[in-house]
Amino acid sequence: MATLSAAAATVDGTGSRTLHANSPDSKKIVGVFYKANQYASLNPEFVGCAEAALGIRDWLESKGHQYIVTDDKEGPNCELEKHIHDMHVLITTPFHPVYVTAEKIKKAKNLQLLLTAGVGSDHVDLKAAADAGITVVEISGSNAVSVAEDELMRILILVRNFLPGYRQVIDGDWNVAGIAHRAYDLEGKTVGIIGAGRIGKLLLQRLKPFNCNLLYHDRLTISPELEKETGAKFEEDLDVILPKCDVVVINTPLTEKTRGMFDKERIGKLKKGVLIVNNARAAIMDAQAVVDACSSGHIAGYSGDVWNPQPAPRDHPWRYMPNHAMTPHVSGTTINSQLRYADGVKDTLDKYFKGEEFLAQNYIVKEGKLASQYQ
Amino acid sequence: MATLSAAAATVDGTGSRTLHANSPDSKKIVGVFYKANQYASLNPEFVGCAEAALGIRDWLESKGHQYIVTDDKEGPNCELEKHIHDMHVLITTPFHPVYVTAEKIKKAKNLQLLLTAGVGSDHVDLKAAADAGITVVEISGSNAVSVAEDELMRILILVRNFLPGYRQVIDGDWNVAGIAHRAYDLEGKTVGIIGAGRIGKLLLQRLKPFNCNLLYHDRLTISPELEKETGAKFEEDLDVILPKCDVVVINTPLTEKTRGMFDKERIGKLKKGVLIVNNARAAIMDAQAVVDACSSGHIAGYSGDVWNPQPAPRDHPWRYMPNHAMTPHVSGTTINSQLRYADGVKDTLDKYFKGEEFLAQNYIVKEGKLASQYQ
Repeated sequence: MATLSAAAATVDGTGSRTLHANSPDSKKIVGVFYKANQYASLNPEFVGCAEAALGIRDWLESKGHQYIVTDDKEGPNCELEKHIHDMHVLITTPFHPVYVTAEKIKKAKNLQLLLTAGVGSDHVDLKAAADAGITVVEISGSNAVSVAEDELMRILILVRNFLPGYRQVIDGDWNVAGIAHRAYDLEGKTVGIIGAGRIGKLLLQRLKPFNCNLLYHDRLTISPELEKETGAKFEEDLDVILPKCDVVVINTPLTEKTRGMFDKERIGKLKKGVLIVNNARAAIMDAQAVVDACSSGHIAGYSGDVWNPQPAPRDHPWRYMPNHAMTPHVSGTTINSQLRYADGVKDTLDKYFKGEEFLAQNYIVKEGKLASQYQ
Repeated sequence: MATLSAAAATVDGTGSRTLHANSPDSKKIVGVFYKANQYASLNPEFVGCAEAALGIRDWLESKGHQYIVTDDKEGPNCELEKHIHDMHVLITTPFHPVYVTAEKIKKAKNLQLLLTAGVGSDHVDLKAAADAGITVVEISGSNAVSVAEDELMRILILVRNFLPGYRQVIDGDWNVAGIAHRAYDLEGKTVGIIGAGRIGKLLLQRLKPFNCNLLYHDRLTISPELEKETGAKFEEDLDVILPKCDVVVINTPLTEKTRGMFDKERIGKLKKGVLIVNNARAAIMDAQAVVDACSSGHIAGYSGDVWNPQPAPRDHPWRYMPNHAMTPHVSGTTINSQLRYADGVKDTLDKYFKGEEFLAQNYIVKEGKLASQYQ
């Protein structure tokens, strides 16, 4: 298996990629980011948009590389399509993802590195990428604080029934009862964290002072120290933890095991009136089962920033279901997150050009093998 | 000075009140609460509305007292007006307050006890009440956890720029840049708590895991233990603390000293782009100065649930100013808060009937004197 050294103009072996750049050292890098238009110039730290392009253009071009940036990613005539056949690196984000299908991978004869500016690489057909010898890397941890904060906000927005009050203000109304009859304190509630990785751990720490009953479920337990610090209790069986929870927060990656994990049957096992926060991935849910349970009141509130697909079409049913507190996919793209993943992308590209190993925790596909959470 | 014993049918002395009830032991109690209409029957724990009337009607009537409950509190022909002349006790809330003016107090010849079901008695002309020998009592602490949680939610809603994203979803849009260009992590921000009483202290504890720079200002310092636990630093001078803060949270009672405290000049001293959370009282702010600073961008976000007056009229300018995250007054009337202040009201009335002292922390006006925070 070849390493991804830019110096290695031609590499051999199963799944290896032959380079066809202008010069052996010149790479064609394509970045696909959300476009900012009138917002691009409002904040010099707003590096995550297509216009600012992670702030690495001058650096890349000074090294002789080509850097194509666009937000135009869909359909046979999109800008991305023009560059698929000869790009070496594709940078994309979970917020405006390129869905890197097996078909796209087949066309991308020069592609060596798929780089997620952020966390979560489920927009890539990882098996196809592995089979083609493409390395998939993300910037692990870059979003963790941002997403954990956002999840706590969403828990509170649902528990406290914030949005009906806001809508009253906008609509010129005043009806305290319309809010208060289903507004609660978070204190004393049972909160279950499904997936206690980087984000889940930070969320547990932030939940600690709220005096909740904290439960969590994962493949592995958190450290005894963190269990003691947060008071969180491990539950091995998903179907045992779920009926206990007033609030369920989903923090698992989207894998073949978690896809559709919350289907009609499992949602039916949740406590009636449960509140759900999902900033992980939308496809972990059966979309229609969520709509039905929100409509019946079995789910009393659903908040998250992840959709399937993204951008969500205008007629996506989650836009219209009752008691939702949805936003577009933004929790991991605060200005602070952007600065972290822009740094991480630059560091990753630097290592790529130098033929160095990437940070171990950033590999999603390495030498034809998927990272453990995706296996 | 008379005690408020129901057994004392006639009491003497300066500022004393003579009773004119049907029997020496029968009291006329008026409760003014927000009406719930179709929401009243949806939740058996929803005791704070006019329909449920704190769940104390059977208890009061079984003791031979009269209990009049209404939400109709404004104008010369309102229901409240019919009972002012002979009521002994008026229970009201900060969420739908009776503005107990000197004129009302003059009419209320039998009034002995003004009871706030909740916290904050600035809807009462406290000096006039003191001069008339009326005791003013609230249910101190009943809302503290509820309001502190709500404040943390509002901080996150502003810092993370939640609402533009929600509005995009509702409007069928998808524009990540329109949110992300001004969305930040709370981590690392400087948060200043103005007023570190019961609520402020709980907020500091809940902010602790967010790794902010925590500052506070009050008449008194918090305990050295709590300073150590939260890392919060005391600042004696309001005009020194304010320019340092990315987020300002106001937690002072409304008194003659705090009325209009945030006027144009003081708002001008805040950091450009400051975020303000005010669940305390609206009249602490100069309302127009807030509108102007939100319009100019000097204040980048303003969130709170307190208005002047309440209910806020349809044309209240805070409904229309940019970057607000306002709701009607609800943070201290979650179901959990309602249950706490309903308990507190029942306990207070029980002591009143028995001629016992109230809990010391609940007195706002006692024997013609205002509690220290109102002096």
